[in-house]
Amino acid sequence: MKADIAVIGLAVMGQNLILNMNDHGFKVVAFNRTVEKVDHFLTSAAKNTNIVGAHSLSEMVNLLEQPRKIMLMVRAGDVVDDFIDALIPLLDKGDIVIDGGNSNYLDSNRRVEKLKKHQLHFVGTGVSGGEEGARNGPSIMPGGDSQAWPHIKPIFQAISAKTEQGEPCCDWVGNAGSGHFVKMIHNGIEYGDMQLISEAYHFMKEALLMSHEEMQATFEEWNKSELNSYLVEITAQILAYKDQDGQPLVEKIMDTAGQKGTGKWTGINALDVGIPLTLITESVFARYLSSLKQQRVDAQALFNKSITPIKGNKQQWIDALHDALLASKIISYAQGFMLMKQASQDNSWELNYGNVALMWRGGCIIRSAFLGNIRDAFVTSPDLAFLALDPYFKDILVRCMPAWRNVAATSFQIALPMPCMTSALTFLDGYTTAKSPANMIQAQRDYFGAHTYERLDKKAGEFFHTDWTGHGGDASSTTYDA
Amino acid sequence: MKADIAVIGLAVMGQNLILNMNDHGFKVVAFNRTVEKVDHFLTSAAKNTNIVGAHSLSEMVNLLEQPRKIMLMVRAGDVVDDFIDALIPLLDKGDIVIDGGNSNYLDSNRRVEKLKKHQLHFVGTGVSGGEEGARNGPSIMPGGDSQAWPHIKPIFQAISAKTEQGEPCCDWVGNAGSGHFVKMIHNGIEYGDMQLISEAYHFMKEALLMSHEEMQATFEEWNKSELNSYLVEITAQILAYKDQDGQPLVEKIMDTAGQKGTGKWTGINALDVGIPLTLITESVFARYLSSLKQQRVDAQALFNKSITPIKGNKQQWIDALHDALLASKIISYAQGFMLMKQASQDNSWELNYGNVALMWRGGCIIRSAFLGNIRDAFVTSPDLAFLALDPYFKDILVRCMPAWRNVAATSFQIALPMPCMTSALTFLDGYTTAKSPANMIQAQRDYFGAHTYERLDKKAGEFFHTDWTGHGGDASSTTYDA
Repeated sequence: MKADIAVIGLAVMGQNLILNMNDHGFKVVAFNRTVEKVDHFLTSAAKNTNIVGAHSLSEMVNLLEQPRKIMLMVRAGDVVDDFIDALIPLLDKGDIVIDGGNSNYLDSNRRVEKLKKHQLHFVGTGVSGGEEGARNGPSIMPGGDSQAWPHIKPIFQAISAKTEQGEPCCDWVGNAGSGHFVKMIHNGIEYGDMQLISEAYHFMKEALLMSHEEMQATFEEWNKSELNSYLVEITAQILAYKDQDGQPLVEKIMDTAGQKGTGKWTGINALDVGIPLTLITESVFARYLSSLKQQRVDAQALFNKSITPIKGNKQQWIDALHDALLASKIISYAQGFMLMKQASQDNSWELNYGNVALMWRGGCIIRSAFLGNIRDAFVTSPDLAFLALDPYFKDILVRCMPAWRNVAATSFQIALPMPCMTSALTFLDGYTTAKSPANMIQAQRDYFGAHTYERLDKKAGEFFHTDWTGHGGDASSTTYDA
Repeated sequence: MKADIAVIGLAVMGQNLILNMNDHGFKVVAFNRTVEKVDHFLTSAAKNTNIVGAHSLSEMVNLLEQPRKIMLMVRAGDVVDDFIDALIPLLDKGDIVIDGGNSNYLDSNRRVEKLKKHQLHFVGTGVSGGEEGARNGPSIMPGGDSQAWPHIKPIFQAISAKTEQGEPCCDWVGNAGSGHFVKMIHNGIEYGDMQLISEAYHFMKEALLMSHEEMQATFEEWNKSELNSYLVEITAQILAYKDQDGQPLVEKIMDTAGQKGTGKWTGINALDVGIPLTLITESVFARYLSSLKQQRVDAQALFNKSITPIKGNKQQWIDALHDALLASKIISYAQGFMLMKQASQDNSWELNYGNVALMWRGGCIIRSAFLGNIRDAFVTSPDLAFLALDPYFKDILVRCMPAWRNVAATSFQIALPMPCMTSALTFLDGYTTAKSPANMIQAQRDYFGAHTYERLDKKAGEFFHTDWTGHGGDASSTTYDA
């Protein structure tokens, strides 16, 4: 009996996906460039399963039912292209290659076209949920050549996470690299969520002088509110975990955050297409700042900076912090969906934002109750310009506003840096300001560069120039072509 | 008599540079792709000068002294490459092509190599100062093929701005695209400076309810302090300018800031190379947000948001705003130089930061007294890791701190968005925090992705993994190669 699918790449994610597929009755071929790993896998985690191994790509290809389905779970970049090049001569028309790694969506765009030329079907899919998700039910975000979807849908929707109602957290995203694009946004949002939680933790520890037991209990309590989510859940567990000496292990960990790059891509994309993705970008920058550990140690000494603990009702502050975290989270997701909307328009992907929220509802790192409400918002208003305009989210923002303002203002008074919580509120204040001070910027640009401006009392698209000094020339800057 | 230099491109900047060169005794050939502009120029602004015109590239080339020097002042992008391709067959070994437009430094990298293959010398130079600077003395930032420098130095240093001591605001920047890179950083800093001023103006108008006369007087007063700069000077003039109906013209201008792209490149570059360039990036995002005018109008109505004016001593608040602006400006420049330092290291440009500050000291849009102090800081400590560590700037930051904290905290209480002034203070608070909460992020990454972490009590570079749940596997995420 031929196998249903092959998976190439036996690191954490690859192994766990294979085991997950096997659990659901699929026959899987496992392959790895370093073939010793295949044998090791078969005699350890894959022992007593229906998983088979291959010791060469040809062997792997021959074991597969047609149209063949081959899923790459390898390092993003050249390795993916190397495998594609090696596979093309071995495959037949109609076969399917799936890239499940953290690839850049632009590479997926390219690979869809490349395989199309060989009458093969490429799918670039985001897979989220880490080690545990891959094993028990990840969020899967496939996009690319839609002719592949009917063939891979049964496998993907079987192994993916499910919502409480049993809906699979996996559906077709769209054309070209849209699957990896949506994964990129997911990863950016993940950076934002993690930075927000770290800011809350920092405030609890340094401003409220809470013990680890108190912090753990607080995050557990918060997990019963609108903040219910995987990341809040694991934060409570992390705060509880003790090192061998009985001290909280998290305090022994070097405070320099690593990253694999996807967060920065989200920020770069936002800058490129013109969307103000402030929170996620601040979260990426916060990781960069954290990597300057020695500079921070030296600078704290030089400036003799210390964080001032807060006096006052601790529980009131904890509740305020909850509201600030929740409100900031809404802004982060709102900005993320704003970016997806822009990309969808620019690329004609026709993304269904409700479906994207559903795909993230379970299995993935950012899974949360919250995403169910986001899904509802987009089902009600598919063209929602900004998530905060949805009544459910607007009401939360209004309710949380006083506490949010207090936490943000206080962070500056006590010298506790909260880049994401504060930039989120700044953003909403800017979004709700009908008359921004950008008129001054336009005036300055016209003054020094004759860049011209529009007027509030004239039609948009009609541009004016002023000789602000009373002695400028008549050439405007629209005439830059030689 | 042959001409000293040719300039291609007769928009604002091109015309003014030519007139400037002519003023300094150089004989200039003017050319434009739409040749009517050449004749128009010669009969208007260039009348009664030594400027000559050409009606074809060949004619232009034949008019030039060798080694020929040809300066492009055209739209960045394909047009530059089109001209290069048209010029190559017309030129001789040793001739020099200079691109003075807002080109991307990566394109300049490429063009240096391309012309080298033809034994020609390419220079990518930033030119700043707008219309007025180009005419009377711009800041010029040349980089690329250093063999060109001795030939263009006399012209560039003659026409450039000068410091009060008579030093030209022009010197050789470095190899490849380093000139355009430094110009890119300049433009990013320009975005930051302009956004900071707009935030101060917004605070004066909406929080302090100042009249335009009061605001103008305040900026004029500030121009006598450490804030002395071209941008502060023109802001005062802008505030004074009345429309025909006697009302301040700036209030008639549509509050949607335009841009030509260089600010976003600075942010993208920072994300790419790993430098936390928060202020400039927030300023780019602020422009994007400003372009969503209708959304802002609708959202202000929906949220019924209004900015709450401040009671209290107006002059004290004005002084506080001054300090917040000055301190934020320091952070913006500190981050910009941090980015330059990283790029210089990555590209082996060996940038001289004091020289860069000197080049910006006069002529360009960001010119200010402040840059003289920056130059001094880098002369004292060429390897300064962060500008705020220099004693002069550290003292200012410490002195301004209480006012800065007050302004930032207050902005959140009164719903007045100040993305740059607040993110600057958040950044300094983060930079002076020895123990950041990034340990929590590392713990989370290890929990869900087995990404491993370093410990404070072990050597850096030694990585650990924890099974935070008590039932994880043994594969760590460093083994992602298939």
